[in-house]
Amino acid sequence: MKTIKIGLLGLGNIGTGSYRTLEMNRDSIASSSGIDLRITKILEKDILRKRDITVSPEQFTQDPAEIFTDPEIDIVIELLGGIEPATAFMLEAMRNGKSVVTANKAAVAANYALLTSTAKENDVSFRFEASVGGGIPVLNAITTVLQANKFEEILGILNGTTNYILTQMTEYGLDYEDVLKVAQEKGFAEADPTADVEGEDVANKLSILTALAFGKYIPPKEISTVGITGITKADIESAGKNECKIKLIAQTKKTSSGVVDCSVKPMEIPEDHPLAGVNNEFNAIFIRGNAVGELMFYGKGAGPMPTGSAIMGDVLEIARILTAHRN
Amino acid sequence: MKTIKIGLLGLGNIGTGSYRTLEMNRDSIASSSGIDLRITKILEKDILRKRDITVSPEQFTQDPAEIFTDPEIDIVIELLGGIEPATAFMLEAMRNGKSVVTANKAAVAANYALLTSTAKENDVSFRFEASVGGGIPVLNAITTVLQANKFEEILGILNGTTNYILTQMTEYGLDYEDVLKVAQEKGFAEADPTADVEGEDVANKLSILTALAFGKYIPPKEISTVGITGITKADIESAGKNECKIKLIAQTKKTSSGVVDCSVKPMEIPEDHPLAGVNNEFNAIFIRGNAVGELMFYGKGAGPMPTGSAIMGDVLEIARILTAHRN
Repeated sequence: MKTIKIGLLGLGNIGTGSYRTLEMNRDSIASSSGIDLRITKILEKDILRKRDITVSPEQFTQDPAEIFTDPEIDIVIELLGGIEPATAFMLEAMRNGKSVVTANKAAVAANYALLTSTAKENDVSFRFEASVGGGIPVLNAITTVLQANKFEEILGILNGTTNYILTQMTEYGLDYEDVLKVAQEKGFAEADPTADVEGEDVANKLSILTALAFGKYIPPKEISTVGITGITKADIESAGKNECKIKLIAQTKKTSSGVVDCSVKPMEIPEDHPLAGVNNEFNAIFIRGNAVGELMFYGKGAGPMPTGSAIMGDVLEIARILTAHRN
Repeated sequence: MKTIKIGLLGLGNIGTGSYRTLEMNRDSIASSSGIDLRITKILEKDILRKRDITVSPEQFTQDPAEIFTDPEIDIVIELLGGIEPATAFMLEAMRNGKSVVTANKAAVAANYALLTSTAKENDVSFRFEASVGGGIPVLNAITTVLQANKFEEILGILNGTTNYILTQMTEYGLDYEDVLKVAQEKGFAEADPTADVEGEDVANKLSILTALAFGKYIPPKEISTVGITGITKADIESAGKNECKIKLIAQTKKTSSGVVDCSVKPMEIPEDHPLAGVNNEFNAIFIRGNAVGELMFYGKGAGPMPTGSAIMGDVLEIARILTAHRN
């Protein structure tokens, strides 16, 4: 058995989900990979919160440098959220020879070029599967099994909050404001839902998907983005008359002149399209490649455990490379 | 630019689709990977068939040993189909230090243990993404991004012919025999449809999926398998009254006592389940993992180009490893 030590930045909901995924499946991970993954240091201020996982007080630190300069730590998981200081921390970790795994779509989308080039310069891995579609394994598919394709189009339902709101408006004939209130009460929408309902979160994810599938990084600020706040009961009824459902769609396609064109906006999707059946908090990514044809990935696009699944999958991929080299 | 030379066993429909995928996307593959993939030798008797690809006569050989003993060839793609001589050829290639990529579900399912152990002993890669779900990237997802999960259940629609027949019976209220005849005329079913309609093809794929997801190899012969030949118009109507659709489902689940239980049989799937909307020649794999929750992969489970996409994706994954080591 080989041991890989990990530093974790942030033990909030997603950090706790990642930690629990490892705790829950440590035995099967070890037996299938021969690797013992250990989260040895955690950067987190709130050390008293009840989390229902086994963490000892000495695992916590308040000093990120303690993680970056620890020669025993090979992989840093960044789950602080937000662009800074997350980006600075990821860069610092890479410069200290650590591979980095993150779920942070805002930071990856804002600083994609800098993060990927810094990883390359320092010969470390940088993985961010969890940043798009939570537990849905779409980024790795694009860069591995599907890499022999030229991609023609990607259509995504990439935000659970807005898809929940649109689904409820459609199913019960309700107004936007009424559904938003219920969604906030149920914890499906945040108290300040702006980043979700205005499409910013989706634009971040589309920027990342586009960079991987089309080899072109388009900053989220340059993506034409319309959210769902203007959608009315009447819009949904009118779509229904056209045998369509309204979904908030992230779209990238190649125009006939070869330009990569991105947008985020509510669209009418025909009821017999696979994306029309993606309801409530579920996400899906629909891809057309010139060899594979039409593909769709469907699953939970958020939540501590699905996101933890993708985080620990990325960690294991890196751990396999590191331990193979140490043979 | 680094060059990787490939030997191809079989230039039938799938071989031609794989060759065309490479021909079509050679530029983008080279620019994204820095690797020039070349199929230098092809084992194929029918050298005169019109294939609409650029193959020169000197690429063909009638002697498999010419491929296995060629020191310049690193990867062998096996697309002969059938258990033998495909298995013997794959083993021979591995023993000569070649990595192997195949779409051959019958051979992989029949000889899974021998093929994987021989690859390990000879320190070569053995990949078979295309053997399950054609172009759908499910096997790689299970072994990489999803590897931190314990899988609880897999439900698959893994055969396009039977799904086409059941979909047409459902949509038009037709009898099995009538739809089969039309499917055969349209080329969606073979003249002898036994392997499809009796579920053998699906059992092969389920054996492979189960080995990867549950770490347990169950030979296809030991999987309880019922096909669709007994399904009547009345069965489908009765399912409809229960708000269900009949699908040929490959299922593996862990029982409460931890036993891995496999079966292939027609099942009533509730209309609101994501698998119920998978129609005609499409395939889908629905997975429940203890961290990721519910996931579904959807796409074309067969056909020269979707299968070629998976074949060349596997080839590129191996080529990346080989060229990295030659740095």
